[in-house]
Order: sequence, then C-alpha cells, then structure tokens
Amino acid sequence: MTATAEQFSVRHRETLDRAVEAIRERAFWTPYPEIPKAYGEEAASAGKLAYEGYLNRRFPLAQPGTDELVGAERSPYGVDLGVTYPHPDLDVLLPAMRRAMPKWRDAGPEARAAVLIEALARLNARTHEIAHAVHHTSGQAFGMAFQAGGPHAQDRGLEAVAYAYAAQTAQVAAAEWEKPQGPKPALHMAKKFTAVPRGIGLVIGCNTFPTWNSYPGLFASLATGNAVVVKPHPNAVLPLAISVAVLRDTLAEAGFDPDLVALAVERPGEGLAKTLALRPEIRIIDYTGSTEFGVWLERNAPQAVVYTEKAGINTVVVDSVEDYKGMLGNLAFSFSLYSGQMCTTPQNIFVPREGITAAGEHKSFDDFAADLATAVDKLLGDDARANALLGAVCNPGVTDRLKQAESVGKTVLASHTVANPDYPAAEVRTPLIAAIDITDTDTYTGEWFGPISFLIAADSTDQAIETFRETVRDHGAITAAVYSTDDDTIAKTEQAALDAGVNLSVNLTGAVYVNQSAAFSDFHATGANPAANAALSDLAYVASRFRVVQSRRHI
Amino acid sequence: MTATAEQFSVRHRETLDRAVEAIRERAFWTPYPEIPKAYGEEAASAGKLAYEGYLNRRFPLAQPGTDELVGAERSPYGVDLGVTYPHPDLDVLLPAMRRAMPKWRDAGPEARAAVLIEALARLNARTHEIAHAVHHTSGQAFGMAFQAGGPHAQDRGLEAVAYAYAAQTAQVAAAEWEKPQGPKPALHMAKKFTAVPRGIGLVIGCNTFPTWNSYPGLFASLATGNAVVVKPHPNAVLPLAISVAVLRDTLAEAGFDPDLVALAVERPGEGLAKTLALRPEIRIIDYTGSTEFGVWLERNAPQAVVYTEKAGINTVVVDSVEDYKGMLGNLAFSFSLYSGQMCTTPQNIFVPREGITAAGEHKSFDDFAADLATAVDKLLGDDARANALLGAVCNPGVTDRLKQAESVGKTVLASHTVANPDYPAAEVRTPLIAAIDITDTDTYTGEWFGPISFLIAADSTDQAIETFRETVRDHGAITAAVYSTDDDTIAKTEQAALDAGVNLSVNLTGAVYVNQSAAFSDFHATGANPAANAALSDLAYVASRFRVVQSRRHI
Repeated sequence: MTATAEQFSVRHRETLDRAVEAIRERAFWTPYPEIPKAYGEEAASAGKLAYEGYLNRRFPLAQPGTDELVGAERSPYGVDLGVTYPHPDLDVLLPAMRRAMPKWRDAGPEARAAVLIEALARLNARTHEIAHAVHHTSGQAFGMAFQAGGPHAQDRGLEAVAYAYAAQTAQVAAAEWEKPQGPKPALHMAKKFTAVPRGIGLVIGCNTFPTWNSYPGLFASLATGNAVVVKPHPNAVLPLAISVAVLRDTLAEAGFDPDLVALAVERPGEGLAKTLALRPEIRIIDYTGSTEFGVWLERNAPQAVVYTEKAGINTVVVDSVEDYKGMLGNLAFSFSLYSGQMCTTPQNIFVPREGITAAGEHKSFDDFAADLATAVDKLLGDDARANALLGAVCNPGVTDRLKQAESVGKTVLASHTVANPDYPAAEVRTPLIAAIDITDTDTYTGEWFGPISFLIAADSTDQAIETFRETVRDHGAITAAVYSTDDDTIAKTEQAALDAGVNLSVNLTGAVYVNQSAAFSDFHATGANPAANAALSDLAYVASRFRVVQSRRHI
Repeated sequence: MTATAEQFSVRHRETLDRAVEAIRERAFWTPYPEIPKAYGEEAASAGKLAYEGYLNRRFPLAQPGTDELVGAERSPYGVDLGVTYPHPDLDVLLPAMRRAMPKWRDAGPEARAAVLIEALARLNARTHEIAHAVHHTSGQAFGMAFQAGGPHAQDRGLEAVAYAYAAQTAQVAAAEWEKPQGPKPALHMAKKFTAVPRGIGLVIGCNTFPTWNSYPGLFASLATGNAVVVKPHPNAVLPLAISVAVLRDTLAEAGFDPDLVALAVERPGEGLAKTLALRPEIRIIDYTGSTEFGVWLERNAPQAVVYTEKAGINTVVVDSVEDYKGMLGNLAFSFSLYSGQMCTTPQNIFVPREGITAAGEHKSFDDFAADLATAVDKLLGDDARANALLGAVCNPGVTDRLKQAESVGKTVLASHTVANPDYPAAEVRTPLIAAIDITDTDTYTGEWFGPISFLIAADSTDQAIETFRETVRDHGAITAAVYSTDDDTIAKTEQAALDAGVNLSVNLTGAVYVNQSAAFSDFHATGANPAANAALSDLAYVASRFRVVQSRRHI
C-alpha cells in the first residue's frame, strides 16, 4: 500500500467497516447527507459557479490517446452546454489503461477501497456542482438531481465498494495448511490468495441517471482491481467527466496511475459503445439502456462479463386499501416524479373491473380512475411545485409516446406541458393515465417509457395477480407494488413476485415511493427477470469481476 | 422447513458451520475420511457387492418422462457393465422438475443445506460402492477412484454447499429500516429478502472424473434452490446414477419432490447435452470437457449462466532445486498418476538449455532429462505398484496422441503398456517424455491430454517465465509449478502466475502433487485464463445461481 493510500485507509476504515456491516444488516444507513443545507452555506453558490466554469470550453482531462475533441450536450432545459471532451484513440488509450493495472492489483482490496472511498468523499463534497451537471443533462428537477445524482449515487458507489471488499476478503489472504499423515509427519504448507482483476471494465452510461446508474459498475470494477473506461450517453457526459476527473486525481495523489479510469466520449453516431464492447481488452461491461442493445451486448461480447439493466413493465396490483388518500397521493407522486422518466416508474396498474374497497367503502373502477386523476392534478396544481417534482423531457421519444398514448383506451388524465419560468424552452410534462382492459395485452406488455400509466381492468384480483406474475416473468420489471387489506392477497402477490423475480412494495401510502430504492437496504432490480440480469448491488454483482489466484509452498 | 429437514439440520448444523468457517480460513479440513479402512470392516465387501448388483440390469431410478432405456458403458479395464438407464422425454421431465422447485425455494438456504449434507453423508457411507463405479468407468486405479471419486468429490460437494449457504445468507432474511425525517416522524419499514433460484441447472459430466467434476455444480445449484438435470458422459454414467438416486431418496425422505434431481442419459450419438443446453428451462450449465464444446456452450446458451472447465497447458518452470531427488520423484508421480489423464497433469516443463543447479551441482539439460526418465522408470518399475498408480486409457484419443508424440522432438522416455493381471484387456500406459525446443511453439501451445510431457529447452529461466506467462494467458492452464532456490525467481514466477491467472505450486518435493488440490483450502482452476471460466469453488461459482427478491412494507 502506498503511504497516501495508507492515510486514506486510516481516514475511511470506519466507513468501510460500517458499509460492510450495512450491506449485511440492511437497516437504514448513509454517510452522505441528502439535504443540500448539510453541505454548508457556501456550497450552493460555489457548486453553481463550478458548474458554470465548465460551460463553453474544453473539459480539463489529460488522458492518453486523445485524437480530437467532441461534445454537443444540450440541456433538456434548453441550454447548450458547449463543453468539449477528449475522443479516444483506443489503440493508445486501452494499452495505457492495461499498464496501469498491476500496481493497482498488487495494492490489495483494502488500499483500493480506501482510495475509492476518498474519491467518493471528494465527489460528495462537490455534490452541488454535480447536481447542476445532472440537472442540465438528464432534465431532472434540481432537487432530484441533487439527491439522485449526488448522495444517492455516492451511496450506490460505496455500496459496490463494500460488496467488492467483502467478496475479495471472503477468504484469508494467507493460510497455513497442515494435513495429518497417520504415523508419518504431517504435510505442512503455506498458501497465499490474491484477488486478480479480469481486465478493463466498460461502463456505458445512460441519459437519465448519468451518475446513479454508472457508479455501481464503475466502483465495483475499480474496487476489484480492474481499470474502467466510461462511455457516457452523448447527452449526459458532464456528470461522468467530473466523476472521472475526481477519480483520476485521487488515484494519482495516492500513487497510482490515473489511467486506471478514462472517459470515452463518442463522435455523433459513432457507435463507440459497440466498438468498445467488442475489444478483447474489455472484460466487464455495465450497461443501462434499451433492451435491444442490452441483449446485443449479452450475446455479442462473450469475452466480457455483462451486467445489464433494460426495459421493463413496472406493475401495481390494487385490491383494497385502508388509507385511500395515502395510496392516491403515493401513486400520483410515483407517476409524476421526473415526469415518469425512471426505470422504476409504475406503468401497469391492475384494478378489478368491479372496483375496490377503500377505507371500507366501495369504489368503482371509474371512481378510482377519477380519484387518481384528481390526486395527480392536485399534486401538480401549482406550477412551481410541479416543476420541482416533474422533469424536462430528455428525449423526443417520450413526447412521441405521449402522443401515441392519447389514442390508447380511454384517457383518464391527459398530459400537458407545465410552464417553466426559468427555462421557457423546457418541455416539462405531466402524467397521462389511460384506462384499458386486461385483454389488451399488446398495449401493456411493452414498455412506454415516460409519464404514461395504464389502469387495467381485471376480472378479479386473482386474475390481476396471475397476469402480474406472467407478464413480469416474460417481459421484466424493476418494481412492483400491491395494495391490499387482505393478508392472503398480499401473500399471494408476494408469491407471484418471487415467481416473477421482482421486488415488491406493499401498501405504500406515505413518503416511500415504489420508484425509489435506498442503497444498503433495498436492492435495485433483481437480475431474476428480463428487465435486468443483475441487481445493484449484491454479491453476484461483484463476485465475477475478479478471480482468486493462489500460490502454495511447503513450510 | 419440513420436520425431516429440521432433523437433518440438527444433525448437520455443526458440519455446515465448520465448512463455512473452512472456506474462509482455508486450513486443512475434511469430514470425509480418505482411507478405505476408516469405513469399517464390512464396507469393502459390501461396496463391491452393491456395485456388482447393478451390472447387467436396469438401474433402479423412477423419474418422470422415461421413453426408453439406454446405456452401453464398457470399463476401460475391459468389462461391459450392461447397465441400462432411463432416457428422458424432456417435454415431460423438465416441466416436472420445474413443478418441484417452489417448495424447495420456500424451504430456505438452511433446510436445503441440511438435506444436501445428509445426501453427502449417505454418499460417503457408500464410498466403496461408488469407488468401484468410478474405477470401472473412468479407468482410474481403485485406490484413486476411492479417494477422488469418494471423499474428495464429497468434499467438493460440501464446499459448494458451504459457499452457496454463505452467499445466500450474506444479508439478513428480514430487516427493519428506519429513516430519520428531521422533525417529522421517521419512516419505518419491514423488509424481507428471499433467495430465489434461476431455474433448472444442467450438469454435463466428464469421462475421467464423473463425480469429482460434477458434484460442485450439482450441489451448488441445488443448494441455491434450483433443480438439476445431470447429463453424464455416456462412458461414465453409473457413478452419477448412484449419486442422483441417493439425492432423490434423500429429498423425498425430507418431504421434497425427488424430481428436483434427474438423470438424462443419451442415446449413442444423440448430442443430448446440446439439446438440453438450448432449452429455455435450463438457466445454469456446468461443464467439464473439450474446449470446443465449452466455448460453444459459453456462446450459444445466453439464457443460462455457464461454468466451464476446458483444456489447458499445465506448466512447470525448473530453475534450480535443493532436493533434486524429491523434485524428480514428485514430477514422476505427477506425470504418472492416472496415466496423465487429469486436467491438472503437467505438460510443459521449461528447463534452461544450459541446465540447472541441483543441490549445489550443475545438471545439464540432458542430465536432467535422463534423471527424470529414470525417476519415472523407478516409480513404475514394479507392475503392481504401476497398476496402483497409473490408470487404464479411457479414450482411444489418448493412445492416438501417444503414438503421435513418439515423433515429436527427442523421446526421453517412451511410453509402454503395463500388464494388468486382473484385467488383461486394459491398456494401462506409462508416461512419454519428449525433449523439444522453446521455438517449437506449435507443439506445446496445444493440450496433449494423456501421459505426455515436454521438456522444453529455454534460453534462460527469465525466458521460461515469460513464455509461461504468455502461453498460459493465451491458451490456459489449470496448474503451474516452479522449482527454484532463488527468492527473486520465485517472486517473478508468482508475478507471472498472477498475470496469467493460474494457481502456482512452489518447490513441491514431498507428498503434495501439483495435480492435486485439497477442497476447503486449494481452489481448483481460477477462471482467470482460457482453461476455465470458473473456480471450484468460490463466491463467483455460487453467487449467480440465485437472486435475491425483496418485499417491503410500512410498519
């Protein structure tokens, strides 16, 4: 371990131990405050200034093999960022990254964890700056960009470091082995066990959660001794460029080669992710995005271990409820958050066509639909509050799907654009809700990414549960929820969730939403249905990123 | 947990805890004695009788979907076994296996471990019987068949159960989560975490180690809640048929559906492994065998997690040695054991062309070659001892390669057939050693499976180490060894082994051989070079066989 890594280790040992405890105990824990105020009085203005300092210039990143400058990010809030980034000559960059690895490998799991937790601490200190970068690339409202792009992403990074450390230290680093030989002297050997990396990891970022969805793979691969090349979505480079720069600085300061982490920004339409994925140096791939490219990666990069998060049809079964208002408010919030542009936004809401029992009263299907529409309207009635909760549409596909959804079933709630006084060009959209029938399978077995939800009339709760089981098993989902006052119904839905392999939230009526998961406690996705082949984070997410090599000799 | 599983759990809890401790500590441990005498006075004759009871009749196995009887095993020792086995109608068998899974899943990791350790205890009690079955299908000498086919295979099965249990219990089964909300009441939730299986596992057995190479995948998949269909090598069915029968009986006795495990024996030339591997129900594949089919599986069964052990070029670097006789004897034994038909037998022995220093004296390359040949001759001089150490050739490919090797380089030691008085038809072969040059890369970069080793003249030890690094990185190896009295040379070789991703044995001169690994302490293979994509066993070997699904609700 280098002297600086040693210092980092002393500084962060307690955080590492606590994180390793947290991933086992899964109670509430986080070292990174989610309230902006916690970052001090100067942080907000300093962060904004730092963000503005990047605009309309070359991003400061000195990495080998830069053959031109690229970048054309335009904020969903209507601003051109004007930042340019290095475009890589892979034949120069990747060999440089490989050369950086042996020293990082030889430093061992503890030193790597210490350096990475130091980098996370530095990223945390720059949360305001990163929040602006996430806000202006993803289209998330600033408050959400702050939490999801900052502390919650850092939580997921630290969680991956903790899992990586736990997995690499699952066996002792050195052992003595003494085998009795009856009357003869025992056989006596000394053995060493070393975690070795697979090679270079490739992290393919997404538009909507540039840091949150990239940090787990980035930190998991680094913590297990690999180098990582980060290929951001072309619309969401800046948050990852800042992250890569912080990591490179921290690594260099700790005495390691900064080329362990590099940014690979593509020329328009270049398809750099595909090129990188097929390189023999790339031995791990982390991807969030479309099912089409995810499946392509899973099948066409056999040299790599591939972790994917793809499309899904998040499902809610509504059977009966005690706190009717709580349920309506909770669902309205889940539909609205970031204008439904989350891989966790509920899409398919199964409701018995005969209606439900709400706080002891009967509510018809149409009553429920109307009440839910009213709840959304009420939640978003004030433009300022709506702008703080919704997001700017980050992709014309969302607008197209909203248009298309207008002619699906019976529109229960139409979507409209909320005026944003700060950014008049932003298209901030409210949720659309359409009522359809359970026989209309073609509609609800595909993903409608964006603020689009279907109230699906089922013959019965049992039919709803069975359809939930089958559709999620076959088409995938990241989230699922059930509302019921009946223990048997909840148990049946839990059983269906186990069969379909999806995480379930039961009777959410307060300030916990089905589309949010808490690091160190909630797993994000399961890897057990077609929406993702991995969970953030669990042992399977880290265990194949390294191998154990042993050396043994007689004593 | 069923009442019987509960009893098994009480019976085996200590073994499970000890095994979980052992995989972490990696000191010597085994619950299964490797000495035949330890099994009692009656065990030998009872085991032989039990084995003979199977011959020339239908194997007693009642599993669904049997459409005909198949089987044509002929012992490498020259005896037709005459046992027939069920051939499966997969459209009946696989659905039955799927139906068996939910109860097994719901029983939880502890109950599954308990039932499987009970099955291992029953297999252990039948070690003599299984030893005969392994002896007469693999061609291993009886003593080796006893150890490798019995207790050592059972060790590897238990090791996989321990890893599976540890991985599934890496997080608590239930947690309370309480998130502070400043002045507002805390958010308070109860969460459950359930390990769910992937589906049906497929274990594809090999001819040479029917139980040893199959038990890890078989037990790892079952312990993580999956069902497993076992497709044995057509020449080595009986040991796995007995194992499947024991597992089915134990499962049924514990109140589970015996169809959680089934045997799938193929018609001659049917290619059943390929058919099974492409079935959507198959979600895990464990394979030991040729590189060609292993790579085919890795690339053509994307619905499954695929664990493969393939061909490799096991390497020894000889630089200098203190105990010259010890080294010669150790190498001679490693070449001879089971007539080199092990995936761990050393093939490429790099030696400086200027010779080595042995116990302070110079030995030329030719001296060393002659001394090694003499050591092998001496070890195998007595036919009875030779028959106890060597094995019967299990595959005409071995004989063909021996023939071909006669014209490679300069023959240092010719192979011959040792007469076996009990089985005159058996072809029991001694090792062939040929001297070649390091420039003859075409010869030594492919696997010559069987008792064939090359002494490769290198310009220097440094060149030998560098060639070791490159050839193993590119072509794979399960084992590697170095002999040197120089600490720097050992350190350099260790570094090369880390780079190549292969386990290294240093200066083996006694009764530990490079081709043997001890469960709970030594990893078999690494997964870090082309010879295998997995190690037996580590966390990566079990972590992707299941997924965690959670359910959360407000308290």
